[in-house]
Amino acid sequence: MQTHLENQLQELTQELLTMGGHCERMIHASVKALLEHDLGHAQEVLTWENRVNQLHVSVDEHCMNILTQAPVASDLRAIIAALKINNDLERIGDQACNVMQNTVDLLKAPAHPLPGGLSRMCELSMAMVREALDAYVRRSPELAQGVLLMEERVDALKDEIFREELAEMSLDRAGVARGLDVILIARNLEKVGDHATNIAEDVIFMVKAKDIRHHHAPESGI
Amino acid sequence: MQTHLENQLQELTQELLTMGGHCERMIHASVKALLEHDLGHAQEVLTWENRVNQLHVSVDEHCMNILTQAPVASDLRAIIAALKINNDLERIGDQACNVMQNTVDLLKAPAHPLPGGLSRMCELSMAMVREALDAYVRRSPELAQGVLLMEERVDALKDEIFREELAEMSLDRAGVARGLDVILIARNLEKVGDHATNIAEDVIFMVKAKDIRHHHAPESGI
Repeated sequence: MQTHLENQLQELTQELLTMGGHCERMIHASVKALLEHDLGHAQEVLTWENRVNQLHVSVDEHCMNILTQAPVASDLRAIIAALKINNDLERIGDQACNVMQNTVDLLKAPAHPLPGGLSRMCELSMAMVREALDAYVRRSPELAQGVLLMEERVDALKDEIFREELAEMSLDRAGVARGLDVILIARNLEKVGDHATNIAEDVIFMVKAKDIRHHHAPESGI
Repeated sequence: MQTHLENQLQELTQELLTMGGHCERMIHASVKALLEHDLGHAQEVLTWENRVNQLHVSVDEHCMNILTQAPVASDLRAIIAALKINNDLERIGDQACNVMQNTVDLLKAPAHPLPGGLSRMCELSMAMVREALDAYVRRSPELAQGVLLMEERVDALKDEIFREELAEMSLDRAGVARGLDVILIARNLEKVGDHATNIAEDVIFMVKAKDIRHHHAPESGI
């Protein structure tokens, strides 16, 4: 039979997965708007954002409640991880809203092909969120490690898109606003990947009691 | 006489204030580089970032240790707040590095006046961080409320800078890369303000046991 604490931890996981599901739908709708010029789900994204915001508050409350029972070891780590994952999911939702907002602006300008790397970036950042949540639900450091490996590719694609768009903006004055929207979208997708990376790091911490933050990526120089 | 828990909580506050001090120095050095073309502290920013990253890991460890003693009520809220503030400070440090990085790029281009709103944005975002940390150390919801009121002005300045730079980039092809750097710097400063706002919200939660997130700002429409 499960203890009260085990039940509560299971409910917490379930709540975060519900929240993660909303976030995935938000990114999916924003990416669909961007790649297929389909704004049909723009308003739904706002509805999902409201739900994500409500869950953001309620997950923290539940963590607080469970912490009053003095959990230790892996249970304590599970709650600390939940607090952090909660934060990252809320921000993933924000980034999805930003992508939708920039896409709405972008679609006001005359149609123009998007940089090739952008659809790959969309796929990769969605995959990172999906696999980070999968790593969380399966308590799998191996899946989490896979997410960390994807981050570099997302960053490289962002740099490629920045270079391409900047070159195009310098050639075509009329396309400056459009280019900026594309750059900001690439930046938002990069952030989605960053937050998925944070979730993956939290899964590794939760399962292996090892804090790998600030260790797996090389320091950037200025 | 202070209890062991009280001592630990005081040490935690002190550790976060040290971290906050590094973050303030990082933003200050980046803003000085931007406004006075003084790159003298660029390398120091990286050194401070390393210290912030080390503190980021160590503050979480200390929070975990204190949580094993089953703190309740305001003590528990103080630790939850510390976990969150820790996260926001680390990101403020990241944003300061981004500002420095974009400034290094910007200073490679021929000198050009910066938009008037940018120095006001620098001042405001630095003030938000300073006052959020002040609100934290004094446990003052009133000071925290003052930080929340500044967020709107920072956002308005960012919008103004975006519009101005976009207009200029459309007129002057040679200034496209420069304009993009200015836009990205404005965006980073806005994020600094966002994180200071989060810290202010955490102070209100810690002192008044009231979660005001997602309540004080109007929902954005798409």
